[in-house]
Amino acid sequence: MGNLIDIAVIPGDGIGPEVVAEAVKVLNFVTNGGKNEIKLTNYKLGAEHWLETGETLPEETLEAIKKHDAILFGAVGAAPGDTRIPSGIIEREMLLKLRFSLDHFVNLRPAKLYPGIESPLANPGEIDFVVVREGTEGPYVGNGGSVRTGTAHEIATEVSVNTAYGVERVVRDAFRRASERERKHVTLVHKHNVLVYAGHLWKRTVEMVAQEFPEVAHDYLHVDAATIFLTTDPSRFDVIVTDNLFGDILTDQAGAITGGIGLAASGNINMDRTYPSMFEPVHGSAPDIAGQQKADPTAAILSVALMLEHLGLTEEARTVEQAVEKEITSRQELTDNRTTSEIGDAIVALLA
Amino acid sequence: MGNLIDIAVIPGDGIGPEVVAEAVKVLNFVTNGGKNEIKLTNYKLGAEHWLETGETLPEETLEAIKKHDAILFGAVGAAPGDTRIPSGIIEREMLLKLRFSLDHFVNLRPAKLYPGIESPLANPGEIDFVVVREGTEGPYVGNGGSVRTGTAHEIATEVSVNTAYGVERVVRDAFRRASERERKHVTLVHKHNVLVYAGHLWKRTVEMVAQEFPEVAHDYLHVDAATIFLTTDPSRFDVIVTDNLFGDILTDQAGAITGGIGLAASGNINMDRTYPSMFEPVHGSAPDIAGQQKADPTAAILSVALMLEHLGLTEEARTVEQAVEKEITSRQELTDNRTTSEIGDAIVALLA
Ligand SMILES: CC(C)[C@H](C(=O)O)[C@@H](O)C(=O)O
Ligand SMILES: CC(C)[C@H](C(=O)O)[C@@H](O)C(=O)O
Repeated sequence: MGNLIDIAVIPGDGIGPEVVAEAVKVLNFVTNGGKNEIKLTNYKLGAEHWLETGETLPEETLEAIKKHDAILFGAVGAAPGDTRIPSGIIEREMLLKLRFSLDHFVNLRPAKLYPGIESPLANPGEIDFVVVREGTEGPYVGNGGSVRTGTAHEIATEVSVNTAYGVERVVRDAFRRASERERKHVTLVHKHNVLVYAGHLWKRTVEMVAQEFPEVAHDYLHVDAATIFLTTDPSRFDVIVTDNLFGDILTDQAGAITGGIGLAASGNINMDRTYPSMFEPVHGSAPDIAGQQKADPTAAILSVALMLEHLGLTEEARTVEQAVEKEITSRQELTDNRTTSEIGDAIVALLA
Repeated sequence: MGNLIDIAVIPGDGIGPEVVAEAVKVLNFVTNGGKNEIKLTNYKLGAEHWLETGETLPEETLEAIKKHDAILFGAVGAAPGDTRIPSGIIEREMLLKLRFSLDHFVNLRPAKLYPGIESPLANPGEIDFVVVREGTEGPYVGNGGSVRTGTAHEIATEVSVNTAYGVERVVRDAFRRASERERKHVTLVHKHNVLVYAGHLWKRTVEMVAQEFPEVAHDYLHVDAATIFLTTDPSRFDVIVTDNLFGDILTDQAGAITGGIGLAASGNINMDRTYPSMFEPVHGSAPDIAGQQKADPTAAILSVALMLEHLGLTEEARTVEQAVEKEITSRQELTDNRTTSEIGDAIVALLA
């Protein structure tokens, strides 16, 4: 007799359903016959769904999603040329609405260069860090506006909102994660010489929380300098903690230097567990290769590992990670010719 | 009989004076005996000056600087550990104050991988693009604040201010520059799926200005995706136009992939010529190697080329650029053992 693990699945658009199918395969396999039973509920959301229904994320759907233990998310987004869908509407009214409504204050994005994966950097060194990106504040709050719109006198503003409450909880999470890692090092990334008020709130908070973790060292980098070190010396990083927008930028760069965001997993985590956390590959819906079994499901599968970890199934999480690592290491080239489901099957075979 | 070119020189802190000395050497040489006479006026400003006097940029000094034809700027900034200087004060009340007071709306930052320079990228390809960074708006306006500061209930905000006036002039500048380049291509970088109001002002402005330049193609990238392409395919870029903060981030990354910001030049340009423009290496004051003749003056010398170009001395600008290119190409290793002034002399020798 096992625990019932009740997962909401949002396959989404483009390659989303294909990679999620492989993630589900792995999820079922690793928990199967063991202590746990998986219950999956599919939610049709995304650009396709919007085209059919005009819905982004209805209140009832959001309420239903809140009842699950966790969310497995594929990818959403229309084809770039598709002008039928107002730009950004799915991102904001669905993806960001989930992150904000479910209070996903830790946007966790590990960056690891696996053996066998080619980095675009000439001398990448050992890359193994995590970015703890704030997920519910900063310039993402949607607090902008414009006046005299469309005229020569237009003024458009965007307001970054940062609270002691919001910054402290994510900084504490970063230090806790660092304290459990080997190198025990936190780097705050911001731009406090220009963004004085937000920057100093972050700096002061790091100084304060650091006192609770005397075993964890910490330093500071301006965001511009951080992009340099991600290029010249990424192995210096252990845990990066940063705001929502800087985290968005740095994690795409982190994905690139570790062999592409096709491998990058992420968790949108509510550490207070008041609402379910959501696990998603960093990549988008890639409409150009959708439905062709060309997508790499690895990022989605690694997101399952993050989900298992969050659900307390640490051993299962480790098993998935190790199988993925083994599978990746065995690849001869980054772009192999196997189908999406062949890669999923290869990982399942290694779990067996 | 020649023109009188009246230059304000702000050597600044750290390695600033050393690299500026070489830049001045080149400036004197290239205009010497020719049609022009150079008049140089030194202004002592920066962290050192602040420690001595408590002044950042007094009004009289600013007014005096406004009278020159152009400004040659070294670098400012205290040593990182120096707690005597309030963090960011020199950057904001001196460097940014100059950029804003002198209406430097085009922050021009070329990124070129010179033959002979090693890129940290494994397959950099041909890198030769310019970033046209907006210089007087965006999150840099200093429009932030905080309430309940220092308490658990603190709220800190930063406001990004964007105007049709400010965006249009810099976008038009980018298209004009692109129209004079071989590939004639502009990429707008922003994050309009999240920063809706500012992002759409930028997008609409690009669409509008593009109509004046039918020969220039244009596309759009979110800032996070831009960091990926700067890693995997930087040769795709020709002219990037972007806001003040995204430009800050991307140009440091651009410096890194082209062999380090030790080579990256920049111009803070007032295209309306209502005030003098300012030319500065992208690198900082590097206090750790200051006064040791270890700094590479190349970025400062390339900034002189941008200055000459802006002053209409196109031929002289080209001469400096070509000498620098020749000198760089002849280097065996990026970090050679020559002193700052030996490198300056080598470039002057190639001018002769
Ligand atoms: C799609 C977009 C809103 C999203 C973000 O900016 O957070 C994406 O870039 C990401 O990083 O998950
Ligand atoms: C020193 C700092 C204020 C400045 C900026 O952010 O613009 C610097 O990083 C630059 O890029 O010139």
